[in-house]
Amino acid sequence: MTRTVSVPLGERSYPIAIGEGLLSRRELTGPIVSGRSVAIVTNTTVAPLYGALLRENLARDATRVIEIALPDGEAHKHWQTLNLVFDALLEHRFGRRSVIVALGGGVVGDMAGFAAAVYQRGIDFVQVPTTLLAQVDSSVGGKTGINHPLGKNMIGAFHQPRLVLADVGCLRTLPQRELSAGLAEVIKHGAIADEPYLAAVERDLPRLLGGDAQALADAVARSCELKAEVVGKDEREGGLRAILNFGHTFGHAIEAGLGYGDWLHGEAVGAGMVMAVELSRRLGLLAAADAARLREAIARARLPVRGPGWPAERYLELMSVDKKAEQGTPKFVLLEALGRACVRRVPDGEVRAALAACTGVGAP
Amino acid sequence: MTRTVSVPLGERSYPIAIGEGLLSRRELTGPIVSGRSVAIVTNTTVAPLYGALLRENLARDATRVIEIALPDGEAHKHWQTLNLVFDALLEHRFGRRSVIVALGGGVVGDMAGFAAAVYQRGIDFVQVPTTLLAQVDSSVGGKTGINHPLGKNMIGAFHQPRLVLADVGCLRTLPQRELSAGLAEVIKHGAIADEPYLAAVERDLPRLLGGDAQALADAVARSCELKAEVVGKDEREGGLRAILNFGHTFGHAIEAGLGYGDWLHGEAVGAGMVMAVELSRRLGLLAAADAARLREAIARARLPVRGPGWPAERYLELMSVDKKAEQGTPKFVLLEALGRACVRRVPDGEVRAALAACTGVGAP
Repeated sequence: MTRTVSVPLGERSYPIAIGEGLLSRRELTGPIVSGRSVAIVTNTTVAPLYGALLRENLARDATRVIEIALPDGEAHKHWQTLNLVFDALLEHRFGRRSVIVALGGGVVGDMAGFAAAVYQRGIDFVQVPTTLLAQVDSSVGGKTGINHPLGKNMIGAFHQPRLVLADVGCLRTLPQRELSAGLAEVIKHGAIADEPYLAAVERDLPRLLGGDAQALADAVARSCELKAEVVGKDEREGGLRAILNFGHTFGHAIEAGLGYGDWLHGEAVGAGMVMAVELSRRLGLLAAADAARLREAIARARLPVRGPGWPAERYLELMSVDKKAEQGTPKFVLLEALGRACVRRVPDGEVRAALAACTGVGAP
Repeated sequence: MTRTVSVPLGERSYPIAIGEGLLSRRELTGPIVSGRSVAIVTNTTVAPLYGALLRENLARDATRVIEIALPDGEAHKHWQTLNLVFDALLEHRFGRRSVIVALGGGVVGDMAGFAAAVYQRGIDFVQVPTTLLAQVDSSVGGKTGINHPLGKNMIGAFHQPRLVLADVGCLRTLPQRELSAGLAEVIKHGAIADEPYLAAVERDLPRLLGGDAQALADAVARSCELKAEVVGKDEREGGLRAILNFGHTFGHAIEAGLGYGDWLHGEAVGAGMVMAVELSRRLGLLAAADAARLREAIARARLPVRGPGWPAERYLELMSVDKKAEQGTPKFVLLEALGRACVRRVPDGEVRAALAACTGVGAP
């Protein structure tokens, strides 16, 4: 069964198709790629698994299909790798009517999407996310970009895909560790916006971790719906959309401090969410039992619940360059209850105490 | 006297202020930069001339003002130079509410605008064009970008400024050759859309070449009006806006073939317009007398009327990677009359013949 979630963005609205076997469903991609030049942007891990299948499907309608396989991993999410895409598009003389199809995880999606956003000032693109993280997170929102040595996702654009194909069949080849990383965002969506969904995820965790297609499709669909609702109300992150950064201010600091690619993004978000609930609890916003419940769900999803053992100052330093920071004072997304998020500026002292509790460094 | 031309783009509409002494007019910039971090992006030629004056003005309202001086010239309009801007913004921890002010010619405007388009997925920017070319051309349209070794402006974005300050006083320090290059676009605007304006420019050429502030302000204002009208109807270059590329398909080939920076952009457009009118004449669209009249105006503006002496094949090869090309067949903007442009696909044979006539190479 294929479900469709619509992302409501006026003339830039697009559908997310969710199900199994979507990579060879010509009726989904045909209307977009028909008569056009298509570049599949993927990585060297995913290309051998799904490249040929997708290419064959697209070639039935496209004028031509080329494949650009980038090196795999967050460590390569920078300008030099992005430029490989531009090199290939220009060598093949791709024009403004060309289409980029992103086949891979969040890194591929971010880079391929940004390439589409700025190649000849913007061309169409289609997302085919092959990780759980990308299916539940990158599919919705139009955020694209690359990293800079001084900060993650510092260079990028908002560029909406024309279509997303979330094929849960692709998750069968996903390493266990990456499945868990994707569950971080699933748990996040429940935590910030939908307590019953959080409860369902807690109940389904064994099936989700076991790769059950039905449970995964349910989670992908509900997470996309929730995120689409938020993004539809606030495409450019004016306010509401900030709640999607729950766990991310701390998480980005972890990733930046480790140099990207050591921890998976979802793992950093897992530990970051534990820090954010600890901070929420300390500020008297969230009940201790609820904080413990979320921490337990994160642990059961096989995600880290402790950050790297750095002094709090190191975290504060790393967070001060985060792009959510204004003039050095980061805002934090906190929980007022499970299923309800808020955004606050927090005194450094409280942040230090929460960090100490979650890293074991400098704790009283 | 300060005039204002409005560029009508819905919620992204912005004013272009045109006059003398605008760099120190606090009431124009204050409302935009008040309470915000500002980066003046300029080049090493312009910075010593106007950097201090502008900086002093902005500093009366901004939280802080930094200056980023890039190396001067089209040859530096690439990623490595752009990255100097990102380095500086991140080192100074500029956040999303920061403002970039572009102070310089078209190259600075394109790079600073693109930096603003993609820094943290988009921040505000203000254009302060200091060349005639930038005042009449880059001020309107929101096109930003950088070059790639395989093509000019291949990587970029549409990003509208919040305000443009076109200070014709800055043109006093402009080299004669650059003044002429700016007149190429002035002549172009008359040629494609307004014959009486073309006639006025022809009449005023001695005053324009002599740097007369009144004549220059008249031309900047009328050119901005004409371009704003076209861009207001077709922001993303769906159709009508293509007429602004009159002379540019040939011109870009000249620039690409010379490796950028040898000829000025306006000089390449000057020779490119002569090629385009020759092609229009050959196709029976334009009367021979009108073609000769435009060629004469271009020559009187001290612009080249002959392209580099390459074989026609070289031009065709260079044009086939131009981004206006679809699958290798470039479209051409031609004139049906002075003041009226059209867009056509043209057989290669006709293009070869026009090129031969305008380069002297391979002519019968």
